[in-house]
Amino acid sequence: MTLQLPVEEIARPISCKAKECAGFFDHENDHWMKTLTTVKPLPQRKNYTIGVDIGGTKIAFALIDDTGSVIENKRIPTQLTSGPEMILVEIGKQINLLIKEYGVNISGIGLATPGYVDTRTGIVKNAVNLNWKDVNVVAILKNSITASIPIYLQRDTAAETLGEHYFGAGKDCQDFVFLGIGTGFGAGAMTSGHLLTGVNNMALEIGHLSVDQHGPVCACGNMGCIETVLSGKGLVNRARDLYSSSSNLEYSQMLDSITAEWILERAKEHDPIAEELLQHMSKSLGFVCAMLKTILDPERFIIGGGLGKAIFHFLRFEVEKEMYSRVLKLDNRKIQFFQSSLKTSAMGAAAMVWYFNGLLPKSIHKNSS
Amino acid sequence: MTLQLPVEEIARPISCKAKECAGFFDHENDHWMKTLTTVKPLPQRKNYTIGVDIGGTKIAFALIDDTGSVIENKRIPTQLTSGPEMILVEIGKQINLLIKEYGVNISGIGLATPGYVDTRTGIVKNAVNLNWKDVNVVAILKNSITASIPIYLQRDTAAETLGEHYFGAGKDCQDFVFLGIGTGFGAGAMTSGHLLTGVNNMALEIGHLSVDQHGPVCACGNMGCIETVLSGKGLVNRARDLYSSSSNLEYSQMLDSITAEWILERAKEHDPIAEELLQHMSKSLGFVCAMLKTILDPERFIIGGGLGKAIFHFLRFEVEKEMYSRVLKLDNRKIQFFQSSLKTSAMGAAAMVWYFNGLLPKSIHKNSS
Repeated sequence: MTLQLPVEEIARPISCKAKECAGFFDHENDHWMKTLTTVKPLPQRKNYTIGVDIGGTKIAFALIDDTGSVIENKRIPTQLTSGPEMILVEIGKQINLLIKEYGVNISGIGLATPGYVDTRTGIVKNAVNLNWKDVNVVAILKNSITASIPIYLQRDTAAETLGEHYFGAGKDCQDFVFLGIGTGFGAGAMTSGHLLTGVNNMALEIGHLSVDQHGPVCACGNMGCIETVLSGKGLVNRARDLYSSSSNLEYSQMLDSITAEWILERAKEHDPIAEELLQHMSKSLGFVCAMLKTILDPERFIIGGGLGKAIFHFLRFEVEKEMYSRVLKLDNRKIQFFQSSLKTSAMGAAAMVWYFNGLLPKSIHKNSS
Repeated sequence: MTLQLPVEEIARPISCKAKECAGFFDHENDHWMKTLTTVKPLPQRKNYTIGVDIGGTKIAFALIDDTGSVIENKRIPTQLTSGPEMILVEIGKQINLLIKEYGVNISGIGLATPGYVDTRTGIVKNAVNLNWKDVNVVAILKNSITASIPIYLQRDTAAETLGEHYFGAGKDCQDFVFLGIGTGFGAGAMTSGHLLTGVNNMALEIGHLSVDQHGPVCACGNMGCIETVLSGKGLVNRARDLYSSSSNLEYSQMLDSITAEWILERAKEHDPIAEELLQHMSKSLGFVCAMLKTILDPERFIIGGGLGKAIFHFLRFEVEKEMYSRVLKLDNRKIQFFQSSLKTSAMGAAAMVWYFNGLLPKSIHKNSS
C-alpha cells in the first residue's frame, strides 16, 4: 500500500513527502524500517466517508458508513459547458448538504475523475472526456465546502478497483484486475493488497495501447488501440462498418441508430454479423487478459462497466479459451472471472478514504458482521 | 512489500501465515492496521548475506556485506545429470566453507532458481531448464549446511530485480521493470518499492505470452511467444531461417555455427540480414516495453542478461521509438532506459535477505557512505 496523505496536507511545501513517510528510522538498530502506520487510525466517531465520481455525463455521490452500507446515494448531470469551476462548486453544494446532516462524523471525501490526475497536488492534469486541463480540483472543492474534511483524489478506475476490494467482487482477494468496459475502456489492479499506481499514477491505463498497427483509427490518433475494440464506441463503429457493407439493404438505413444493446440483442437472435462482432471482442478481451495474467499474475478478473457486465455471461467462455491459448499452463489452477458487484461507482471513491488511511477491508467488514 | 518469512519458519503448520502477519489488530482503535514491522530488524553484528543463483549451466555464489560490497564471489558448473539432491548438497558444501569463515555474522541465505517456485514452502514446483519438478530445495539445503541460518527462495529474475534495486541500476528508483534477455527471456518489477509477485509468484513471467499466433513455434508448444524473438535461442533460430533462404551459398555452410555474438558482429558490418534480425528484435522489445509501460507505469526499464546488455546501445533508439509509437503520450516526461549493472546475479539472491527483512536500499547505502 502506498501511503497517500489527503491533498490538503501535502500541497503545502513540507519536508515529509508522502512516499518517504512510509517508513521510520529505527534508532535502536540503526536502520530504516518500512511501515504503514504513520497515519493515525480514524477515530471511531468519524465513521462516514463521502465518495464523488465525476463522469462525462453524470456525477455520482455516495455517503457510506464503516460497515459498507450506502446511506445516501445521488446522481446529478455533469454540466460540462459550465466549466470545471462551476461543476466543482455544485459538487461542493451537494457535499454541504451531507455535512449539514452528518457533520463531524464524516472522516474524508474521495474524489474520482477520469484521465491523468496528480494525486499529490490534487490537480487533474488532463481529462479528455471532461475537457479539463490542469484543474486544481481539490483546492476549488475545499473552498466550496463548509467544513475542514480531508479530500483524496484518484483516477476513476483506480477508485473503482478500491471499491471492488472493499465492497464488491474483490472483497476477499488481494490480487485482482478490474476491467471496466463502458463507453471507453479502463482498468485497475490490486497486487498483494496494494493499489497498483505506477510512478505517474497511470498504471493500467491500457485503453490506448496499440496492439494492432493495422487496426482501426482511434480517437487518440493511433491505430488499433485496445479501446477501438473493447468499448461501446469501438463496438458500434465496427458494427457500422460491417452492416454498411452487408448486402442486406435494411441495415444501411439504420446505421446511425446502432447501439451496443441492439448488437447484443441481435447476437442473441444469432445474427451472424452481431455474433462476429462479439466474437472479435472476446478474442481481444482474451488477449488483454492473457497479457495481464502473465504480467500481474492475478487470482481474479473482475469485469465491470455497463457493456462489460452486459456481455459477461455471453462472452466469458470464449474469453477464457482465448486467454489460455496464449499463456503457458503450469498447473490446473484456474483464474477466476467475476462480474462487478458495486452498487454505484461512487462507492469506489468513498473506499479511497479507508484505503489511504490504512484500514483494510476486513476491518470494515468485521464491523458489519 | 509483501512480508516473506524465511522458509523454515513457515513450512511448519502454524496459525500465522506470512501474508496475514503483515498487520496487527489495534485494540485501542478497534481496527486492523497494516504494518511491515512484525519481523525484528537484523542485529548489527549479522552483517553478511549469502546469495546463490542456480542456473542451467552454472551456479553463482556471493557473500556480500551490508554496504553492498561483494566479499566472496564464486561460480561452479551445474552438474544437471547428478540430479537436484546432489546439486543442493554441493551448494551446501560451498556454503559451509563460508559459514566456517563468517559464522554467526551471516544473517540469511537467498536462493534463486528459474521456473515456478513456491516461496512459502521452499519448493521448486517446475523448472524446465533444470529439469526439476517438486524439489524441496530449502529442506534439502537446510540439511546440508552446518548452521541454522534462515533460507529464502525466489524466482531468479525476481531476485535479479531485487539485486538491481539494492545494488544496481534501480538503486534510487521505486518503480522499474527489469528485462533479462539471455538464452531465454525473463523479467521482474518493483512497484512503489515493492517486488511485484502475483498470487502464484509468477508475475512478469511473460516469455511465453503468445503475441503473434502466426509466429514461430516456441519450445513450450505455442506459437509466437515473446521468447521466440527476445532471446538468444530465438535470434539464432530466426537467423538460420533467413540465412538458409539467402542466395549467398557461403551462409548455408555455416548455419550450425551461428551465434548471437556473430549476428551482432555482422550487423555492425551492415550485413542486411543481421540488421533485419536486430530490427525485428527491437520492434518486439518496443512492443513489450509499451505493454509494460501502460500496465505498470514504471519510471525506468533496466535491460540485463548477456544478450540484453550486448544489444543495449545498438537497439535502444529503435526500441524507444517503437514503444512511443504504441502508447498515448501525455506529456514530455521520458521513460528511462538503463543497462543492468550487477556484478553477479548472485547479488540478487543475496538482496532477498535484506528485502524480506524490511531493510530498504537506503539503509544499506547509508552504511556504505
